[in-house]
Amino acid sequence: MLSEFDIIRQCFDQKGLSAPETELVKTGIGDDCALLSIPTGKELALSMDTLVADVHFPSSAEPALIGARALSVNLSDLAATGAEPCVFTLGITLPEADPDWLMAFAGGLKSIASRYNCALIGGNISRGPLVITVQVHGLVETGNAILRNGASPGDKIFVTGSLGQAGLALKYILGELDGFNAEEEALLHNAYFKPVPRIEAGLALAPFVSAGIDVSDGLLADLGHICQSSGAGAQITLPAVPVSAHLTHRLSEQEALAMAMTAGDDYELLFTARPEHEQSIMALSLQLDVPIHCIGTMTSGSQVICKDAQGAEISFEKDGYQHF
Amino acid sequence: MLSEFDIIRQCFDQKGLSAPETELVKTGIGDDCALLSIPTGKELALSMDTLVADVHFPSSAEPALIGARALSVNLSDLAATGAEPCVFTLGITLPEADPDWLMAFAGGLKSIASRYNCALIGGNISRGPLVITVQVHGLVETGNAILRNGASPGDKIFVTGSLGQAGLALKYILGELDGFNAEEEALLHNAYFKPVPRIEAGLALAPFVSAGIDVSDGLLADLGHICQSSGAGAQITLPAVPVSAHLTHRLSEQEALAMAMTAGDDYELLFTARPEHEQSIMALSLQLDVPIHCIGTMTSGSQVICKDAQGAEISFEKDGYQHF
Repeated sequence: MLSEFDIIRQCFDQKGLSAPETELVKTGIGDDCALLSIPTGKELALSMDTLVADVHFPSSAEPALIGARALSVNLSDLAATGAEPCVFTLGITLPEADPDWLMAFAGGLKSIASRYNCALIGGNISRGPLVITVQVHGLVETGNAILRNGASPGDKIFVTGSLGQAGLALKYILGELDGFNAEEEALLHNAYFKPVPRIEAGLALAPFVSAGIDVSDGLLADLGHICQSSGAGAQITLPAVPVSAHLTHRLSEQEALAMAMTAGDDYELLFTARPEHEQSIMALSLQLDVPIHCIGTMTSGSQVICKDAQGAEISFEKDGYQHF
Repeated sequence: MLSEFDIIRQCFDQKGLSAPETELVKTGIGDDCALLSIPTGKELALSMDTLVADVHFPSSAEPALIGARALSVNLSDLAATGAEPCVFTLGITLPEADPDWLMAFAGGLKSIASRYNCALIGGNISRGPLVITVQVHGLVETGNAILRNGASPGDKIFVTGSLGQAGLALKYILGELDGFNAEEEALLHNAYFKPVPRIEAGLALAPFVSAGIDVSDGLLADLGHICQSSGAGAQITLPAVPVSAHLTHRLSEQEALAMAMTAGDDYELLFTARPEHEQSIMALSLQLDVPIHCIGTMTSGSQVICKDAQGAEISFEKDGYQHF
């Protein structure tokens, strides 16, 4: 059995995962506090997310995937803010200190930490139910962060990638849908456990964006957050919404659209920009090789309104995921 | 039933608890990330701690006390680093969104947040077992943080306050000891749920200190951390250790000493300093009205050795608390 300090040393304080001393990281793992020296002209962006076993992932899932997902969903918040990831902290409680589970979990964290240059600088491990809390920290030029409150009537609404895949993936993971071939299964598995935080896109888009958020609760709910923070409304043109092709294969058109609009967990970027920036944004889409679709326009109202091809208003049963 | 967003608005985004916009806090609760602007010449100290129901506190405990304890034990890490508290984040999972419980919990957080000028800037709330993770953030002049690795042979070893009270309190809370009068019960209750983070002492002592830590795992274990980080040993003069008077009333002399040396959770500051600073430290003790005792000397060895009044070596069954 590993002791608390053995776990930290062997599993977490390993090359490629824990932060070496740098200009930014003055002290990392192993002291009462970690110490960061933030460069002049930069602000520190930080975000915390918690994943609970059998709420946010099946407790039987591969530990490497749980680790990868825990860090990726947090990085998505930095992407939505247009911040460059730098370091993270980890709070984990778990029923027993199984060395194999812990090494695999740390390996999953490491794969994402090294991909996005976001090293571990500290945290907490103790006995308890399997709950994982990650706080990510990123840097953004002073005054340049993307916030939710900057959208104005007339701004165009954009979304990266396609939507609904994570919703379908969740149904597959929970065993509510089957009959997929091996390739589809691998894809759904990755859609759920390895969401790609749109870090590069967030950084590149930031100069053109008036407001932004990541699609975690669901497109409608998250657009609602932008509307509420910005004191504006929004009108979505439903045929313009990029519904994932994997949904249209398996679900009716109506079901697929509803899933794309409300299922959440896709971790795509949803953002607004002045219409004159549309061309620059579409050029970035090609350059980054990230699909970006214009799906509507901000209005002077206060609600999110969805219209079909004929201009008829369509409503959905629920906006998105709520924890309570 | 409160929704996730109602909980945040009503319980957590309240005056005295959540951070207003300041020179430091550019964005607080309610966006994908919080944004901090760290003043030039300062480093950011950060520390994360997790409290699990029925591991770190009884789940039936008053929610205000759970909130107060969750923030206080984290602030103690800033005290040990000589950092001034500024903001914190909160990750909480709980089985159901009981408004009364949540308001009382937030009230407990608020009492400590306002006392130590440490405001809430964000976090996460979701359904799950009752687990509370807090990350505190503080400021320290660049290069002036107290670390564990600065002790040298010949340094004197000091500790604030008295030790063992939280160990006794835990036995009382768990129902393993009874027969206390009302005054004693109130005192033990507070010792466990309202540990006082030694923020003012940490800030005032920092210029004189070579290494420091807070007593969370137990005096022997925590001194061991300083020894390991500093590459040194330590010798403790047991009669000089300030054993809480509440222990000596209830336990044999030997039991009381063992509890003071190993029980942890006292959140006193344990630190080392060059002998020439002893007078300044004792002057600060008077000025701050915080008892400070010199309990030993750092050595060129690698172990922590304890000696009684006759100079005989005494060993203890265990060093301190380990989570696994």
